[in-house]
Amino acid sequence: MSTHKTLTVDLGDRSYPIHIGEGLLDTLPDLVPLDLEGRSVFILTDQNVFMPHAQSVLAAVKDLAARVEIKTVMPGERSKSYDTLQNVLNWLLENKVDRSSVFIAVGGGVIGDLGGFAASIVMRGIPYIQVPTTLLSMVDSSVGGKTGINTAQGKNLVGTFYQPVAVIADTKALETLPDREMLAGYAEVVKYGLIDRPDFFEWLQTNRGGVLDLNADALMHAIATSCEAKAEIVAADEKESGKRALLNLGHTFGHALEAEAGYDGTLLHGEGVSIGMVLAHRLSERMGLCTAEDVKTVTQHLEQAGLPVHIPFQTNADVLMNTMMSDKKVRKGKLTFVLTKGIGKAFLNADVDMKDVETIWNEALSR
Amino acid sequence: MSTHKTLTVDLGDRSYPIHIGEGLLDTLPDLVPLDLEGRSVFILTDQNVFMPHAQSVLAAVKDLAARVEIKTVMPGERSKSYDTLQNVLNWLLENKVDRSSVFIAVGGGVIGDLGGFAASIVMRGIPYIQVPTTLLSMVDSSVGGKTGINTAQGKNLVGTFYQPVAVIADTKALETLPDREMLAGYAEVVKYGLIDRPDFFEWLQTNRGGVLDLNADALMHAIATSCEAKAEIVAADEKESGKRALLNLGHTFGHALEAEAGYDGTLLHGEGVSIGMVLAHRLSERMGLCTAEDVKTVTQHLEQAGLPVHIPFQTNADVLMNTMMSDKKVRKGKLTFVLTKGIGKAFLNADVDMKDVETIWNEALSR
Repeated sequence: MSTHKTLTVDLGDRSYPIHIGEGLLDTLPDLVPLDLEGRSVFILTDQNVFMPHAQSVLAAVKDLAARVEIKTVMPGERSKSYDTLQNVLNWLLENKVDRSSVFIAVGGGVIGDLGGFAASIVMRGIPYIQVPTTLLSMVDSSVGGKTGINTAQGKNLVGTFYQPVAVIADTKALETLPDREMLAGYAEVVKYGLIDRPDFFEWLQTNRGGVLDLNADALMHAIATSCEAKAEIVAADEKESGKRALLNLGHTFGHALEAEAGYDGTLLHGEGVSIGMVLAHRLSERMGLCTAEDVKTVTQHLEQAGLPVHIPFQTNADVLMNTMMSDKKVRKGKLTFVLTKGIGKAFLNADVDMKDVETIWNEALSR
Repeated sequence: MSTHKTLTVDLGDRSYPIHIGEGLLDTLPDLVPLDLEGRSVFILTDQNVFMPHAQSVLAAVKDLAARVEIKTVMPGERSKSYDTLQNVLNWLLENKVDRSSVFIAVGGGVIGDLGGFAASIVMRGIPYIQVPTTLLSMVDSSVGGKTGINTAQGKNLVGTFYQPVAVIADTKALETLPDREMLAGYAEVVKYGLIDRPDFFEWLQTNRGGVLDLNADALMHAIATSCEAKAEIVAADEKESGKRALLNLGHTFGHALEAEAGYDGTLLHGEGVSIGMVLAHRLSERMGLCTAEDVKTVTQHLEQAGLPVHIPFQTNADVLMNTMMSDKKVRKGKLTFVLTKGIGKAFLNADVDMKDVETIWNEALSR
C-alpha cells in the first residue's frame, strides 16, 4: 500500500474525493465511493493511453465488475466532436448501459471532457470516475466539473457541469508523458502559486526539479496543492460567474497566442499560459501594481523550468488585439484581465486601458 | 391583470416558480425571475404552435429584449433526435448565444424535452423558460427537470436533469388543443389523485366537466394541484431513485401497450396510462390490496371522461409480458409495480408475482 493524499472537493451533495499518489490505479476499487461489484463498467480512453494505463484500470476492476467494456477514440482535440460523442453514446447504449453502470475516463483533457460529457447525458447521467493521465488534466480538469466538445463555432461551446464520483491521479502515469507535455502542465501548477499561494510558489522555487523529474513526493505535493487551490476557488463559484475567472491568469494573453498559432501543436496550451503569465505580470508592472522584481522572478522560474517566456513565432500586435477582443469572455466590448499586486496576489480588473495591453504586445514582439 | 396561481418547486438553489392562469403569456416578462431587458432571447417552438402561442410570447418580449430569434422545428416525436438537437445548437451558436441569453421553449412535451436539453448544454447551460402549451406538458413536464432526445436504442436515453428558471402555463393555450390530446393530458391529472390525493380525486369526480370544458378556474385548480402533487414527490427524490417511481402509476402496463401500438398515434401516451391505471387497480384488487368498488370507481371516472379503459387493438399476453420485461426500468429481471390500497393510496412493490400480471393481461384481452 503506497502512501497517497486525498482531498475532498466540497460541493454539497456533489462532493467527491481526489486521490493522488504513485501506483494508485492498481487499487482503484478501494478508492472510489461506490461498490463496483456486480456493476457494468465502461472505460473510455485513447489509443495512446490504452496500452499502459487503461490496461491497469481494466486489471484492477475486471474481477469485481459484472463486465467491462472498453472503447478507444483517436487521440487529440478532434475527438471532442458531435460525431465522436454520438459514437461513444451509441457504444454505451448498444452495450446496455444502465443507471447502475460506472463510466471511467482514462486519459488527458480530451478524454475527460468528452467522456464526462457522455457520462453526464447518457440516461441523464451515470456515475463517472475520472483517471487523468497528464499533469495538465490532473491539476486542471480534476476540479471544476467542466465537460464538453468543440463545434464549428468554437471550443467547448457545448457541454455540461458534471462532477465525477472520484478522481484518481496516479503519478506513475506521468512516466509515459512526453517532456514537453509535462512542462506544459507545469505552467498550470505555477499558476496556482501566482494566483493566491505565495508559499506554494516559494516551495516550487526550491522543488521545481523534483516535480519535473517525477519525484513521487514532490509530484504528490504539487498536484495536491494545485487541486486544493483550484477547489477553493471553484467551491466559491461553481458555475463560473465571478471569482473563478482568477483561474484565467495568463490565459487572456495565452489564448490569443494559441489561436494565432492555430492549435496545431506549434504552441501547447500550457506554453501559451506560460508566456501569458509573464505578460500579465508585465501589464501589472506597467500599471504600477507589481514590481519589476516580481516580473523577473516569475519569468526566470518559468524559463529555468524550460517553458517559453517569449512569443516563439512572427505575428503583430493588431492581429493579437483583434483575437483577444473576439474571445468568448468579452462582455459588452470589455475584457476582464487577471492582474496582480505581486507573487500570489492576483485579482480581477475589467477596466484595463487597451492601449497598455497593446504596448505590452508590442514590447513582447520586439524582444 | 387576470388572477393566477403560482407555486414554487422547491429544489434549493435550483428552485423555480410555476405560474398557472388564463392569458399569462401576454405578461410573461412580469412573471419570470430575471430581467429580460437588453438580453438576447431565443424562442424554440414547432410549426403547430408557432402561429398563436409563440407569437404571443414574441409580442410580450420583443420591446424589452435586445433581440429575439425564433426557430421552429417539425412537430412530433421525431424532432427529439441528435440531428434536430445539433440543428438547434447550431442555430443558437451561429446567432451568438451567450450566458446572459434566455431560452424559451413554447410547445408540448417534445419542444420542452428537446429545448430544455439544448438550453442545458449550450455554453454548459443558459437560463431557460418553459411555456407548455398542452395539458400533458403543463401537468407533467413542468415539474421534474427531465430533458432529452430519443436514439436508435430507445426513448429519452440521452438527456439531462435541468431546471427551468420559470414555467408559464397559460390555460388559454389549451383552446387550440385537439380534444383527444386534452383527454390524454387529463389521464395524468387523474393519476395525481390516484397516487396520493384522494381529496383531489373527489374534486375531479365533481369538476371533471369544468376541466374538460376549459373552465378557467377549474383548469387552474386541476393544473396547480397536479403540479403541486408532482413537485412534492420530485422534491423528495430529484434524481429518480425511489419515491419518484410512484409517478409511474399506470405506466408499466401503459408503456407496454404504447410500445405494441408502435407510437404511431394509434394510442396516445395518456390513453395508455388510462388503460394502465385501470389494470394497476385490477392487479391490486387481485392481490387483495384494494376493493372491486375502487376498481369500478376509477374505471367509470376515466370512461365517462371519454378515455379508453379497454385495450383497443389485437395483441396477446405473451407479447405484452415480453415488452414489459424489456422496459428500461427492469433491474435484475425484476419490475417495480405501482400498486394501490385504494383511491389515493398508491405504493411501490418490486415483488409482484408475474403470473398475476399475466392473468390481468389475459382478462383484459378477453373483455
